[in-house]
Amino acid sequence: MACEVVTFGEAMVRLNPPHFARLEQAHQLDLQIGGAELNTAVGLSRLGRSTAWVSRLTNNPLGRVIANRGREAGVCTDSVVWTEEDRVGLYFLEFGAAPRASSVLYDRKDSAISRIAPGMVPWAKVFQGVRWFHVTGITPALSTSAAETTREALQAARAANVKTSIDLNYRAKLWNQADAGRWMSAFMEFCDVLITTEEDTERVFGIQGQDYEEVSAKLTKRFPLKIVAITLRENPLVWKNSWTAIAYQGGSVFRTRSYEVEIVDRLGAGDSFAAGLIHGLLDDDLQKGLDYGVAASAIKHSIPGDFAWINRQEVESLLKGSGLRISR
Amino acid sequence: MACEVVTFGEAMVRLNPPHFARLEQAHQLDLQIGGAELNTAVGLSRLGRSTAWVSRLTNNPLGRVIANRGREAGVCTDSVVWTEEDRVGLYFLEFGAAPRASSVLYDRKDSAISRIAPGMVPWAKVFQGVRWFHVTGITPALSTSAAETTREALQAARAANVKTSIDLNYRAKLWNQADAGRWMSAFMEFCDVLITTEEDTERVFGIQGQDYEEVSAKLTKRFPLKIVAITLRENPLVWKNSWTAIAYQGGSVFRTRSYEVEIVDRLGAGDSFAAGLIHGLLDDDLQKGLDYGVAASAIKHSIPGDFAWINRQEVESLLKGSGLRISR
Amino acid sequence: MACEVVTFGEAMVRLNPPHFARLEQAHQLDLQIGGAELNTAVGLSRLGRSTAWVSRLTNNPLGRVIANRGREAGVCTDSVVWTEEDRVGLYFLEFGAAPRASSVLYDRKDSAISRIAPGMVPWAKVFQGVRWFHVTGITPALSTSAAETTREALQAARAANVKTSIDLNYRAKLWNQADAGRWMSAFMEFCDVLITTEEDTERVFGIQGQDYEEVSAKLTKRFPLKIVAITLRENPLVWKNSWTAIAYQGGSVFRTRSYEVEIVDRLGAGDSFAAGLIHGLLDDDLQKGLDYGVAASAIKHSIPGDFAWINRQEVESLLKGSGLRISR
Amino acid sequence: MACEVVTFGEAMVRLNPPHFARLEQAHQLDLQIGGAELNTAVGLSRLGRSTAWVSRLTNNPLGRVIANRGREAGVCTDSVVWTEEDRVGLYFLEFGAAPRASSVLYDRKDSAISRIAPGMVPWAKVFQGVRWFHVTGITPALSTSAAETTREALQAARAANVKTSIDLNYRAKLWNQADAGRWMSAFMEFCDVLITTEEDTERVFGIQGQDYEEVSAKLTKRFPLKIVAITLRENPLVWKNSWTAIAYQGGSVFRTRSYEVEIVDRLGAGDSFAAGLIHGLLDDDLQKGLDYGVAASAIKHSIPGDFAWINRQEVESLLKGSGLRISR
Amino acid sequence: MACEVVTFGEAMVRLNPPHFARLEQAHQLDLQIGGAELNTAVGLSRLGRSTAWVSRLTNNPLGRVIANRGREAGVCTDSVVWTEEDRVGLYFLEFGAAPRASSVLYDRKDSAISRIAPGMVPWAKVFQGVRWFHVTGITPALSTSAAETTREALQAARAANVKTSIDLNYRAKLWNQADAGRWMSAFMEFCDVLITTEEDTERVFGIQGQDYEEVSAKLTKRFPLKIVAITLRENPLVWKNSWTAIAYQGGSVFRTRSYEVEIVDRLGAGDSFAAGLIHGLLDDDLQKGLDYGVAASAIKHSIPGDFAWINRQEVESLLKGSGLRISR
Amino acid sequence: MACEVVTFGEAMVRLNPPHFARLEQAHQLDLQIGGAELNTAVGLSRLGRSTAWVSRLTNNPLGRVIANRGREAGVCTDSVVWTEEDRVGLYFLEFGAAPRASSVLYDRKDSAISRIAPGMVPWAKVFQGVRWFHVTGITPALSTSAAETTREALQAARAANVKTSIDLNYRAKLWNQADAGRWMSAFMEFCDVLITTEEDTERVFGIQGQDYEEVSAKLTKRFPLKIVAITLRENPLVWKNSWTAIAYQGGSVFRTRSYEVEIVDRLGAGDSFAAGLIHGLLDDDLQKGLDYGVAASAIKHSIPGDFAWINRQEVESLLKGSGLRISR
Repeated sequence: MACEVVTFGEAMVRLNPPHFARLEQAHQLDLQIGGAELNTAVGLSRLGRSTAWVSRLTNNPLGRVIANRGREAGVCTDSVVWTEEDRVGLYFLEFGAAPRASSVLYDRKDSAISRIAPGMVPWAKVFQGVRWFHVTGITPALSTSAAETTREALQAARAANVKTSIDLNYRAKLWNQADAGRWMSAFMEFCDVLITTEEDTERVFGIQGQDYEEVSAKLTKRFPLKIVAITLRENPLVWKNSWTAIAYQGGSVFRTRSYEVEIVDRLGAGDSFAAGLIHGLLDDDLQKGLDYGVAASAIKHSIPGDFAWINRQEVESLLKGSGLRISR
Repeated sequence: MACEVVTFGEAMVRLNPPHFARLEQAHQLDLQIGGAELNTAVGLSRLGRSTAWVSRLTNNPLGRVIANRGREAGVCTDSVVWTEEDRVGLYFLEFGAAPRASSVLYDRKDSAISRIAPGMVPWAKVFQGVRWFHVTGITPALSTSAAETTREALQAARAANVKTSIDLNYRAKLWNQADAGRWMSAFMEFCDVLITTEEDTERVFGIQGQDYEEVSAKLTKRFPLKIVAITLRENPLVWKNSWTAIAYQGGSVFRTRSYEVEIVDRLGAGDSFAAGLIHGLLDDDLQKGLDYGVAASAIKHSIPGDFAWINRQEVESLLKGSGLRISR
Repeated sequence: MACEVVTFGEAMVRLNPPHFARLEQAHQLDLQIGGAELNTAVGLSRLGRSTAWVSRLTNNPLGRVIANRGREAGVCTDSVVWTEEDRVGLYFLEFGAAPRASSVLYDRKDSAISRIAPGMVPWAKVFQGVRWFHVTGITPALSTSAAETTREALQAARAANVKTSIDLNYRAKLWNQADAGRWMSAFMEFCDVLITTEEDTERVFGIQGQDYEEVSAKLTKRFPLKIVAITLRENPLVWKNSWTAIAYQGGSVFRTRSYEVEIVDRLGAGDSFAAGLIHGLLDDDLQKGLDYGVAASAIKHSIPGDFAWINRQEVESLLKGSGLRISR
Repeated sequence: MACEVVTFGEAMVRLNPPHFARLEQAHQLDLQIGGAELNTAVGLSRLGRSTAWVSRLTNNPLGRVIANRGREAGVCTDSVVWTEEDRVGLYFLEFGAAPRASSVLYDRKDSAISRIAPGMVPWAKVFQGVRWFHVTGITPALSTSAAETTREALQAARAANVKTSIDLNYRAKLWNQADAGRWMSAFMEFCDVLITTEEDTERVFGIQGQDYEEVSAKLTKRFPLKIVAITLRENPLVWKNSWTAIAYQGGSVFRTRSYEVEIVDRLGAGDSFAAGLIHGLLDDDLQKGLDYGVAASAIKHSIPGDFAWINRQEVESLLKGSGLRISR
Repeated sequence: MACEVVTFGEAMVRLNPPHFARLEQAHQLDLQIGGAELNTAVGLSRLGRSTAWVSRLTNNPLGRVIANRGREAGVCTDSVVWTEEDRVGLYFLEFGAAPRASSVLYDRKDSAISRIAPGMVPWAKVFQGVRWFHVTGITPALSTSAAETTREALQAARAANVKTSIDLNYRAKLWNQADAGRWMSAFMEFCDVLITTEEDTERVFGIQGQDYEEVSAKLTKRFPLKIVAITLRENPLVWKNSWTAIAYQGGSVFRTRSYEVEIVDRLGAGDSFAAGLIHGLLDDDLQKGLDYGVAASAIKHSIPGDFAWINRQEVESLLKGSGLRISR
Repeated sequence: MACEVVTFGEAMVRLNPPHFARLEQAHQLDLQIGGAELNTAVGLSRLGRSTAWVSRLTNNPLGRVIANRGREAGVCTDSVVWTEEDRVGLYFLEFGAAPRASSVLYDRKDSAISRIAPGMVPWAKVFQGVRWFHVTGITPALSTSAAETTREALQAARAANVKTSIDLNYRAKLWNQADAGRWMSAFMEFCDVLITTEEDTERVFGIQGQDYEEVSAKLTKRFPLKIVAITLRENPLVWKNSWTAIAYQGGSVFRTRSYEVEIVDRLGAGDSFAAGLIHGLLDDDLQKGLDYGVAASAIKHSIPGDFAWINRQEVESLLKGSGLRISR
């Protein structure tokens, strides 16, 4: 059975000390799996969509655990490209508390996905029967061949009449703004929906504006985008943020409510926004996508790990205004 | 030696994933014991009262662990009815963070206590020398025979000249409002003190009012109650609530201070309010009961598990206005 | 894509205290998933076979976690029948040390699978393209309707030309020997391969013999079985057993080496023997099945949880005589 | 209700690193409660006897946790003498593996019990209705006033017609052989049953013999003892010992089977032997006492912590020859 | 190589239940090391200063673990005086949540450091090449001989031309105000920098004032102090405080920004303020010291344990205004 | 103060699932530090020798934690070369049980130490006042420049009149036998003491013999070695091995007793043998070195982690024949 949505990118083994300890204090690390595009696939799966994730993984316990956990969360991993070479990307995470922000230490260099190259993934076959393809700006940042493969995927999606969304997700530790700008601009040609933040838009495309509407308008003017979505976070503290997003389509701005979120783990929140947004857009309903995206990702902040272990019913309850009482 | 207070109801093995994980993410569960009436007995024991808890338990490790942990917290379990049949009730708990409320999954059907029936407990003997009997609306909700046994207990208490308190505690997952209204109304005849919330009062008795005074007045008008106590929670977030209560007696409303509580575990908070209230009423002092009830239950929010591992000294310090400095 | 192997039965949430603690001592429980037929599907999946597991589960976090973990281990759960009713079976496990055996406390009554009934599973569709069907004597022991559904499945397998294996797996806590004998005898008609122990054969079928050959011969004489496999455990201690099996086909006895196993967790060992056996039989090679079955299950004893997190490469290494040095 | 058995001595908070770590490696410590006489009371309680433990404890969380956990395991703590002074004894434990023995670091100096003195415990009242009193050689070793209080207790027991048992339990870290010999010899006058090892008998009383019979005979000749029991451990390894005991009464030696024990935690094993022995002697059956004592303590080796979380049913099963299969 | 800074005092093994549990609930305790002067040495080491800590420790695993962990955090322990006698101080900690404050239970009596006496430490040798000596009011509170040794150390520091700072740190559980006042007043003669709070200043020296300036002015008038630093905490809740400090020198008040801190563990926060302050003063820059002191200690609130596992780079980032975004 | 012993090589962050879980099952990993030469330095430090370890580490939390933990165990890290480049080597470990051996997954490629090059370490300064230098065959296996730096170190040691020992330690995953043979043969010129196994001697040097004496004799004939030590392990099971070693000097074979070891963690056992051997050789006593080496490493098998958290007193007790009783 073909999946509705395919995503493409890296997932890593994530290792973090429990209970706000610093890495230098750690004697145990929690092991989770995370990666923007896999996170989004998981979010969509939890909302009821059939999804598949494409990547390249080393066939050792660390590579297998990534695929296993993706399947556990409902994502098909049949199109993962396995190799006996290379290594599995890792990232180390420290949870903070004001005034110490949480921080990430990547150890992802030379991972199997960074050595993916055009021709390795049979995109035409992968996209058979698929309705949506999602990727982020992290995948092309991994290596030139990964960027080329991203382009190959986007072109194949377009050829297969598959809708595409790209989360800009600029990572300064992976590439510079010039490279990001060049590659991402090229990808916009194959992109239906762009998800971004004001800050990333400026860093990657040099686009600024007085407000979200202006930024969005400039984006849709420069690139053939149908929809632009912008997430908005206010974080005066580490344990409590406010979180919402807006969307722009055909000159109109769509809004949804803002959530005050108590933060257990904000990693992957943006990715679950993408999941909710795509979920609505698969129903051709941008307002629904925005509502589900923000609600799903608001809940994600309360869940440990990168994966959004939400379910559709609770997202819908939240949208209907469920309170914070214990249900019993 | 006879106990001062006897309570009657179900206690369950409670299982919750640590650190805000969802059940679907869990690889370890914390095991605690909880049940409204046992929780109240524990609270009273910790305040210095001798207490006993009556229930029916299956004689297997799960049943024994419930009795063991009750004794650990100072509650006499000699009157528990043991059986080789049936099963031990369980409940699963997920801790949330805004905007995700904590949630409870009951697996308590066909528990030993649900099959208790009149005649199984020698109430006359149990109540010898006892001053107070406490039960909640959960016990009769478990089954018809449990409701009948609750009635039997209340009648026996009255016959033995034991004061009675009932916490209305409506559980929509256990019975419907019509059944609850019928049984609970009947029990009011044997009840000296009713503990409730505005919401439960409306759901069970259909009583509404403009304010707590009006609700309380209507309750004392309809039923032969001496005292009504109403707990008040404001929960704009999951990790921080404000918490207080009022009491009504003979046309007068009693108040105490409100606490801003940082929430570690709010399960059992209402039950420890009942404990503090009864503690004061055993001294014939409603204001003391209200003060101790709210202070004890405010502290309870900071303690993991359903049991209020408080001590009387710290409740009294709080009432005297101890601050939040570390004592050293 | 059709799976090669389908299994059918109950899986439960398994809860055990860590580090040999008794349940009465427990403050944390490890959560694993286990169930004979799911365990066998996992073992086959880890050996490289595509597998699916059929069951009935309540759609709550406990039911979902069972399906999730099955998928994590590579088993397709698309044919699980979901219900909003009933409950999820649990079992509690205490690990022992000589002279205290490990022990199991079941809390599986009224589980969703116990209420499965003929007609609920579209067997004809499930068996399309399938080569092997496996079930154990636990499934029919759950309830009469489960027994009837087991019969329905076996008949459908035969109709679809799917090979069948049955692990006798007598559970005295679930049914008596008379019932077991009647149902299991009836199932033998649809069974190609029987997996059993000497003890179970006597308890269920009343068949005894001087040696395995005689027992096997009697079994194949009474029932139209092609192959009988018998597992052999010697357990003078709890932490160290010796483990092997024999197989009987057409009058010949097949043997493999015996393993001295240091025991981390022997739950599910027999089920992984079935997996290895079926793996070989799918290649029409009984000796291979016996070798893989015993080697895979010997390794299983070293792995926590019911699932055999083995991989085919290490089973093959063991068969080639790899030693106990650390590979580095 | 009066208890059948009273014991008297120190219990400590025990702290050990998990998983064989050394204390210098520890970042977490498991907290258990242990003390010879409390351990024996727990063992008797688990075998179905009503028991009480007498001690002196500081009224802080550490003192309270000792009493709480005693009650959890079924022991009455109403006769504990509470004080606001002094401190709670601690002991630190490292679990070993051959060739490294497990080791204990005491931090028990100046504990509340070491400052107990004659007159503090109302022995006459404590012994009302009691059938048996048990103490070990550790209690008098704590301080001179503790030794005097032990003598006071033994005299009071005799006066109240309560049978007495003493476990010699020589602790070289607490006192020297001369002091031990003097005090313990004096106590023998009030002792019905002596529990000891060959080694301790020599160290404390200077009594040696060619075999257990001779040692026992010499003991009963020198002191007015009715019964002598001697435990026998062979420990060629740390994780596996063989364990049995003999008893001597009126010139006859009683024996029971020897157990090969896989060792999870041998602390408290001797104390649970005493429990089983007393259990039998309360039924005037020395052979039963020896059988239960050795079986109960054999099982104790498999249980973490000093307390014997056994139950009578499993002790009886073991005596009937239950094997090491998982019961299911 | 000589160290820049030497500190002198007690460090204890700290034991706390995880996750807000009460000690009476604990089955595991986290083991950390803490002690005001060692904490300050650690803070300075983490800011890049070479430091040594002087103390007296029992040569057992508990004493060694204190020294080991100090070295782990970069502190030289070569001048620790080892003894085979006495014991290692312990403290037990409960973490609270409003309205329950965190609380500390000391078990430090008769520790090895409390029995330190003049002549045991070769101060002249210890201070060779050293620039700064730091001690707190806790060390002299431990015993008279410890107070005398503190005086000896301060005199030796002055003789060696080493700058000195004293943190007043009044501990009501260790000594009374009269004794504290007498000893601390005497020490002021040898003190260059006093760190204190308004409250401690009043309790120890009886000095009050309308504002910090007046208190500081009075202090510098009564004693020959060059600098006074006062830390300021507002704690309306347990999990969120605001935190800053002021310094006073030559009639001028120095200020720095205030931090809203989310509190993981506030133990040792004041000690890390001292570290940052001394760090700046070693560069003859009081404003830098105040800035670093408050920033370092603000971050300390987010770190479990008494030690400030900060690094200089993140302190400097915070001073430059880094936000609470995750860096990636 | 100069150290007595310097070692040189890589240390890694070691990550292993607890309790025999496979990596694919892991949700938590224990973090330890390990590396052959650092392990040996730790062993020597624990035996009372002053030691330093030379390496190259990336200046991030993972690199710092390695140095911190080395210092915690008593090893000087002042000569570590720090870099902002490269990465920190990791290794993942699975603990096994028969018939599954423990296994190691390296992720150490491109670590900072692999990019060390001649000239980076000021060897002449490092070796001032040093008596012994130790390195293993792992260091040159990391890269050509690491091999060249090893040669540089050995030459500098010889120039500084520092005795040298080399543990052959062939790692097939790092280099092939030809390369190992060429480099290691060249190093033998600068080597006083060679530590090896029969198997490694054959793989690296192609030297075989009928017994240890012949192998040793051939080694000392081919290379200018003064002493050859050979460790001997028998591992019929994973949890229990027997362990000893022999040494060869001037035609004589030295022997010591063999230990039956119960295995908690055998990683680093060989390295602690080297520590004990060097400890004796620093006293010019080969028999002492052999005795201490085997006793220390026998104990090491009982200690989690690569580091030998032994102490000299317990090694000496073991050599004097201490038994396996609990000392108390």
